[in-house]
Amino acid sequence: MISTRRITMEATRFRVTFERMGIGVVAIAATIIGLGGVVDAFSQTAPKAPDAAKSFFAANVGSILEEYAELLAIPNRASDDKNIRRNAEWIRDALDRRGVRAELLEVAGAPPIVYGVLEATSPGGHDRTIGVYAHYDGQPVVLEKWKQSPWEATLYTRALEAGGQPRPFPKDGEPFDREWRLYARSVSDDKASVMSFLAGIDALREAGIQIGSNLVFFLEGEEEAGSRHLGDFMDRYPEKLDVDVWLIFDGPTHQSGRPQLVFGVRGVTGLDITVYGANRYLHSGHYGNWAPNPAMMMSQLLASMKDETGRVTIEGFYDNVAPVEPAVVEAAKTIPPIDDQLRETFGLATTEANNAPYLDRMMLPSLNVRGFESGAVGARARNVIPPTASVSIDIRLAKGNDPDRMKEITEAHIVKQGYYIVRDEPTQAERLAHERIARVNPRGGYRAVRTAMDLPVVGWIQERARAAAGDELVLMPTMGGSLPLYLFEEKLGRPVVIVPVVNYDNNQHAPNENLRLGNLEYGVVLVASLFGAR
Amino acid sequence: MISTRRITMEATRFRVTFERMGIGVVAIAATIIGLGGVVDAFSQTAPKAPDAAKSFFAANVGSILEEYAELLAIPNRASDDKNIRRNAEWIRDALDRRGVRAELLEVAGAPPIVYGVLEATSPGGHDRTIGVYAHYDGQPVVLEKWKQSPWEATLYTRALEAGGQPRPFPKDGEPFDREWRLYARSVSDDKASVMSFLAGIDALREAGIQIGSNLVFFLEGEEEAGSRHLGDFMDRYPEKLDVDVWLIFDGPTHQSGRPQLVFGVRGVTGLDITVYGANRYLHSGHYGNWAPNPAMMMSQLLASMKDETGRVTIEGFYDNVAPVEPAVVEAAKTIPPIDDQLRETFGLATTEANNAPYLDRMMLPSLNVRGFESGAVGARARNVIPPTASVSIDIRLAKGNDPDRMKEITEAHIVKQGYYIVRDEPTQAERLAHERIARVNPRGGYRAVRTAMDLPVVGWIQERARAAAGDELVLMPTMGGSLPLYLFEEKLGRPVVIVPVVNYDNNQHAPNENLRLGNLEYGVVLVASLFGAR
Repeated sequence: MISTRRITMEATRFRVTFERMGIGVVAIAATIIGLGGVVDAFSQTAPKAPDAAKSFFAANVGSILEEYAELLAIPNRASDDKNIRRNAEWIRDALDRRGVRAELLEVAGAPPIVYGVLEATSPGGHDRTIGVYAHYDGQPVVLEKWKQSPWEATLYTRALEAGGQPRPFPKDGEPFDREWRLYARSVSDDKASVMSFLAGIDALREAGIQIGSNLVFFLEGEEEAGSRHLGDFMDRYPEKLDVDVWLIFDGPTHQSGRPQLVFGVRGVTGLDITVYGANRYLHSGHYGNWAPNPAMMMSQLLASMKDETGRVTIEGFYDNVAPVEPAVVEAAKTIPPIDDQLRETFGLATTEANNAPYLDRMMLPSLNVRGFESGAVGARARNVIPPTASVSIDIRLAKGNDPDRMKEITEAHIVKQGYYIVRDEPTQAERLAHERIARVNPRGGYRAVRTAMDLPVVGWIQERARAAAGDELVLMPTMGGSLPLYLFEEKLGRPVVIVPVVNYDNNQHAPNENLRLGNLEYGVVLVASLFGAR
Repeated sequence: MISTRRITMEATRFRVTFERMGIGVVAIAATIIGLGGVVDAFSQTAPKAPDAAKSFFAANVGSILEEYAELLAIPNRASDDKNIRRNAEWIRDALDRRGVRAELLEVAGAPPIVYGVLEATSPGGHDRTIGVYAHYDGQPVVLEKWKQSPWEATLYTRALEAGGQPRPFPKDGEPFDREWRLYARSVSDDKASVMSFLAGIDALREAGIQIGSNLVFFLEGEEEAGSRHLGDFMDRYPEKLDVDVWLIFDGPTHQSGRPQLVFGVRGVTGLDITVYGANRYLHSGHYGNWAPNPAMMMSQLLASMKDETGRVTIEGFYDNVAPVEPAVVEAAKTIPPIDDQLRETFGLATTEANNAPYLDRMMLPSLNVRGFESGAVGARARNVIPPTASVSIDIRLAKGNDPDRMKEITEAHIVKQGYYIVRDEPTQAERLAHERIARVNPRGGYRAVRTAMDLPVVGWIQERARAAAGDELVLMPTMGGSLPLYLFEEKLGRPVVIVPVVNYDNNQHAPNENLRLGNLEYGVVLVASLFGAR
């Protein structure tokens, strides 16, 4: 329960903080200050959360962008101790001002988690607790590749590639174009989620809509650095993370431009493999046809792993793949066909397995060669037999695949091809004892997640998202990328649903990262719908 | 015929030139000056050329090294116009002083050929004309990797790797150790041949041994740059190059350390191949298992070209290989078994085709992957599907293989695997029209040469080499490396025999190139035996 007293205190602090931001903030500040008065003025005839949030966004677009620019101005590489903590403190304070009981959780060596609780205020709202995950750190920037400073959020009339020109932020209530784009590091990945929380809560308060569930915020500061301490935080604070479902606010909406909910991610693991010929470069004239050629050996090894239709031929590779649930088959029908468009964009006449549908392929484990290096090509090529050939392989996992088992069967396949396995450079004695030697270095990994789409709480999330997104909503059984969501399942024992907000073409991780203004609006509307009581 | 008058003139010039060289040259100068007197003092009981040359080398080792150091001091990269010409002039003058009618042959844009004629002086010697080929240019040097300046020939007590220490040149007649090594660029490849000619002629004159054949010297200055104008010289000066047989003074003696004659070289050609996936890097999570992976495609393509026993599976690859002549089968018996020793050295448990003998493998065409590049491996690997995979392939040719045909059947094989062939980067339209695209860029090349070992003139050369080398002499049907010897066959219509002089472990083309003193002695003895009348 949030007391009136507490909200009044918050509003006072809020005004003080926002005075630094100057013009354009008065409207929000006024809204929040007035909140104590409207909370109890709730009426059954008032607009529902999505409509209310849409109106709120239109009326406060300038203030929202100003506040967002303040957050975007703080550099957020996970390893930049000082600045990453400034981000965390800024978000903590921003949540705190909105009545969220916010604090920083710490484990040694990690950026803090911004943790917060906002209790339900609606009748029955306490029966459901929603975990809200996002991350506030960002990828490193290569400054010279940016059109403007990545820390000075700049609005453009459309995407740079489409000829966008810079323009001032609109004033509150001034008409805006949903195609405008805000450029800054992390503006899409993933501070857009954080800003959606803030403005979404504001919108609910403005409309007098109660909070419809208990909310637990869990905002990570090292996702882009591999979430190395995420499990440690979960181990250390289990009682703070006892929720019914986790909403993972990350990733883009569908390639078709339509909003989506995503119910899973592929897992991932991989191996680095090196095979060996002679212990030095040999002249290809003097020894070609006599000394084994590692590039050819590796080619034969790889070719033994996958056939020309794209089927992986490692024994047992497709065992253990969980059957596709009927709900997934249904969900697939909501997905716009994008295969042809992607092939056209990427210049591909065909894709694997005779143009098998994209989603079908994402539901299977994959074996991908990330790189292959041996000797040199083109002008740098010399008349040699290279001494080694190395590849880096990633294996994406479908639901049901165990990462260790997938590495084991791959290694067993290599052994079956006659290779002796080493973990370090082979010794001369090993070279002389074994006809074929492969150095295999397995990498870490984690399993896939796919949340059952027919769980009641998941059904409730679909309803609320559809209220925000309309019939355009895509229900995507899995995304192709991998996130360590298994931790939420394994350590916390709760299902996850990914709730993307941002435009697909956001230049995530790259220079000139951007957020389409229409997607920020969608984020605010979606958050209001998910957090609100109606 | 060389007149006494001419030799006296030469001797005078010789002395003047050599005064610059200081101590140690007096003995040679005296020898040559005395030559006019001893030419007619020939006696049937006098020592034969090999013994005479051995004595001469021992008596003049200091002077020979001093003169050689002068030649080695002139940098000799083919593209260094000024210095490469200084080399040519130095050699022309050195031959000229020894009675060779020497001149420089020119074609535009090429280092000059040092050309020279030394007519037979023995009865019947005019019936046979021997072409003598060597090259005086050298590989580029990477200065910082040299133990000392590559242009200051330095004598070491043994190979650097064996702990050799620098020592002064011995004085003439002072005992020397055959394991001493002289370090300098081109000391082995291929100025050792030039110095052997000079000292070999001196040795014959010193011993009063007549010249036993007409000799035509043809010394190239751009062999290390690919002999780009060698054919032009042959086309321009055919009448100067009318000989019975060409002796190619180049390359090392046998890996066993034994002297050898080599009767052929492999030909060579090759192709660069690139295969294509999407027109950009794709995320391996989002698109792995859907978008084709070019590294895998290339691996499958290469694997289709060669089986695991080392047999090339391109249709027709082993057609047209000339049958091995009975003389070659006989010659093979002279070759010391080195396969086990090489495997041990190179750290190979086995070699291709179930340890098939080295020489058997050299008699077949080979397909070798010089390099394979796609994406990146190790710490640089990223979660991508690389857009391309490229390889560089060389094909070594056996006698009978046509380089163009070998490229054609390889390309036909690629087409048979379903590839559409392009010569440049594929356009978007080509990408969308063809499931598999390979850019194939054939390289130049030339065919193999193997001289019939039972030709009379070849038999005569074997006899003379055996007189110098003894029963240790290896008769090697072909070397593994490639040289454009086909030009001698095709343009000049004459057989070739390769006459190596230098130690096998000479660091040819590399830093710290060196010549074992025993091999310089062998060169002088061999030249004397081949040039002399007894």
